[in-house]
Amino acid sequence: MPSPRTKVKRHPERGDYERETIEAILDEALICHLGFIVNGQPFVIPTIHARDGDMLYIHGSPGSRMLRTAKQVVDVCVTVTLLDALVLARSVYNHSMNYRSVVVLGRAHELTERAEKLHAMRRVVEHVVPGRWDDARQPNDGEIKGTTILALPLSEASAKVRSGPPIDDEADLSLPVWAGLIPLALEPAEPVPAEGVHGPPPAYAAKYERA
Amino acid sequence: MPSPRTKVKRHPERGDYERETIEAILDEALICHLGFIVNGQPFVIPTIHARDGDMLYIHGSPGSRMLRTAKQVVDVCVTVTLLDALVLARSVYNHSMNYRSVVVLGRAHELTERAEKLHAMRRVVEHVVPGRWDDARQPNDGEIKGTTILALPLSEASAKVRSGPPIDDEADLSLPVWAGLIPLALEPAEPVPAEGVHGPPPAYAAKYERA
Repeated sequence: MPSPRTKVKRHPERGDYERETIEAILDEALICHLGFIVNGQPFVIPTIHARDGDMLYIHGSPGSRMLRTAKQVVDVCVTVTLLDALVLARSVYNHSMNYRSVVVLGRAHELTERAEKLHAMRRVVEHVVPGRWDDARQPNDGEIKGTTILALPLSEASAKVRSGPPIDDEADLSLPVWAGLIPLALEPAEPVPAEGVHGPPPAYAAKYERA
Repeated sequence: MPSPRTKVKRHPERGDYERETIEAILDEALICHLGFIVNGQPFVIPTIHARDGDMLYIHGSPGSRMLRTAKQVVDVCVTVTLLDALVLARSVYNHSMNYRSVVVLGRAHELTERAEKLHAMRRVVEHVVPGRWDDARQPNDGEIKGTTILALPLSEASAKVRSGPPIDDEADLSLPVWAGLIPLALEPAEPVPAEGVHGPPPAYAAKYERA
């Protein structure tokens, strides 16, 4: 059930409040945009997230400005957006984009316990590159301390989805204008090894894919 | 010159305040994330933008919630982010992403004059699909009225860019861990014509590309 704050008002037919839809979008997206307020000014910062059941972890270093405002609990908005296509209609007005987005509102708190932070760090790395955590050198105490992770419950969230072809006004359908979709997707290319690295990339890099 | 609010504090070496860098990122990005405040709660909504010299136009329909708060001028943050690669280091801690982002702070106002709005609508369409405006059926008065466009001066903006290979600690360089980049890019696929559309797609759709 949407809250009054997360109910989709513009294009309500695009609103989706199913937990499954929300989770699939959060899990596919590689980055989120974290919104917070400092001195009455909204800030929006790109960062990395990972979902763990009903909890969203947010890699909080970019929000250190926010955390420095001294509260341990802050009102935030986390938004993720996946772009699927450009939608070219016969009329300018009916041009659109196909996308899947999620907005999560709530109060985020900073993780402080070592075990909790380590768990969240693992979730974040595995969210971005599944299979990577166990291969890499594990974080030491200083690195865990040096990492900021926020936790935000997924209790107030909604998805908004547009899919399918352009929808033109009846009167425009006979116009001699090309209309349709230009599909878009974030595609990986061949991995590029760092200097001094020999041997083939692991399968999770060579065959990297989202969703 | 960065303002105190836009100066990059975390990883200051990634900060870039050159107008050319900022404009190139804004011009390549297909969507932005618009941050604003309603009743003390930050909201972050994906939408479409276009740059026109020193002005950023923002397709404001998603912000109607914001505009309903009755002010004609609102404090906003507009952020665009381009993801270029996943950065796999030998240590978990030095994992990163290559990205180019821009943050614009300021007060946005709503365009109200017909000619101004029509100009901004053209910029937005041409930003997303260069060459499209003249082909499509032009907006009528009702459609222009039904479109909300915000204008935000690019007077307080900064870019943040990470590029290049992973940077591992000296002590980790000899570890037998694959390290390197997984490049990522938003790639277009073959256009999909709408029902009833015949003939080949125009070149700006068939050979669509960003940047």
